[in-house]
Amino acid sequence: MAQSKRYSERASAHTNPTAIRLFQIMERKQTNLSVSADVTTKAELLRITDAVGPYICCLKTHIDILSDFDHDLIDQLTALAKKHDFLIFEDRKFADIGNTVKLQYSSGVHKIASWSHITNAHIVPGEGIVKGLAEVGIPLQRGLLLLAEMSSAGSLATGEYTLEALRIARRNKEFCIGFIGQRRLEGLIPVEEKEDFIYMSPGVGLTSKGDGLGQQYRTPREVILDSGCDVIIVGRGIYGSGDTVENAKTYQKAGWDAYLERIEKGRK
Amino acid sequence: MAQSKRYSERASAHTNPTAIRLFQIMERKQTNLSVSADVTTKAELLRITDAVGPYICCLKTHIDILSDFDHDLIDQLTALAKKHDFLIFEDRKFADIGNTVKLQYSSGVHKIASWSHITNAHIVPGEGIVKGLAEVGIPLQRGLLLLAEMSSAGSLATGEYTLEALRIARRNKEFCIGFIGQRRLEGLIPVEEKEDFIYMSPGVGLTSKGDGLGQQYRTPREVILDSGCDVIIVGRGIYGSGDTVENAKTYQKAGWDAYLERIEKGRK
Repeated sequence: MAQSKRYSERASAHTNPTAIRLFQIMERKQTNLSVSADVTTKAELLRITDAVGPYICCLKTHIDILSDFDHDLIDQLTALAKKHDFLIFEDRKFADIGNTVKLQYSSGVHKIASWSHITNAHIVPGEGIVKGLAEVGIPLQRGLLLLAEMSSAGSLATGEYTLEALRIARRNKEFCIGFIGQRRLEGLIPVEEKEDFIYMSPGVGLTSKGDGLGQQYRTPREVILDSGCDVIIVGRGIYGSGDTVENAKTYQKAGWDAYLERIEKGRK
Repeated sequence: MAQSKRYSERASAHTNPTAIRLFQIMERKQTNLSVSADVTTKAELLRITDAVGPYICCLKTHIDILSDFDHDLIDQLTALAKKHDFLIFEDRKFADIGNTVKLQYSSGVHKIASWSHITNAHIVPGEGIVKGLAEVGIPLQRGLLLLAEMSSAGSLATGEYTLEALRIARRNKEFCIGFIGQRRLEGLIPVEEKEDFIYMSPGVGLTSKGDGLGQQYRTPREVILDSGCDVIIVGRGIYGSGDTVENAKTYQKAGWDAYLERIEKGRK
């Protein structure tokens, strides 16, 4: 089981270049924290990113909420990713047919595929969405996460829908490196062949319980230890109030401690 | 049943300002055609829009695939919408939690809510997505379509998922004016109260059967007469080959004839 292995061990056995880099960064920096910086100006995004950079494995962006987006922002984000050693994950949640998502991923003002190591997609349009994105992403050695579950109230990504995400990912392993979800899924449909999907889990908070628009929170320990996910995604818990750097350190430690406890438990 | 009424009659009885305008335009211009202009430059989009403008009720855009998007484009599109009397529908397929879609709809480079009369959303995140979008859209008198079904192969928007779209729309009628779908849904869960949802159907073509990335096509007659939808959305069938204006006229007539046949049938 992937969840009882160290991130470094999983890096050695993986075949997708982005998945390998992510595992290596996680082990090197001892962090499974991804910060979701949902701010609307370039200055705020760069300030938060530079502050949390040393403590994260991955920066999650919503590039389309930045009112002053420009190519200099991408240059600066890319420079910060090198300086602090993290990957960039554009949380685009692609959700259209294959022909359209190809264009949305490669083109437009944002040119997501050119700078974002990881992106994600809903499977509701069917497998064509993955095929379309893969045509753009594989040549660039990118990785895709499928939305298997969501953390919001009343999410319809449950049951058979979630299982279908697993099936589609298994059929597209060259590009699909994992899932956005609440728990590991592999046990739900056993397979013979070796596989190692990365599970990133949003809706993580140490204190807050919700946001009034349906978002629900779980703790890092619940996400990493109890549910076997690999990366905690924290947004407003980091930059919403208090000291951003101290918050990032707190979540980094909480996530890493839960991971070490999981590895220890797996040894027994 | 809405499908046996004239668009003009439905305009008089509706309460959402965007739905009323759409029905009035359809009747005035005798068209239920929406053109989906999936091109990647401003010049192409403006050229196609000016050419098809007289024959459409609604222009469907993917603003995020335009590499040279700028505010002048919005000014020009808005001017063309006035000149030719059509609405603009940004096919954004919002698919995130409420707090995020609020920002994606109102902010960023594209500021969709400021110019797009209609937009659409997936319901997979749960009802919070509609609540989030409504906070932005209702004050601007916009309309939202929910994706109840998709035209791509292996779509997971079926069965209980589709019914949930209907339930969510019924609970949010001030803002949800209808659906992207393949057929009318109201009979699936009968209600007492008066309602009139607009059904827009993509994947319409007179000749082609598919695109190799999972898109599947139906004819205007199947969509309007057999399935009771209100608006046909045609993309590559209009500007993919041949004369764009002649193609638009052909689809306009096919869609309108099917509508007249439907009204006639409803009288019997």
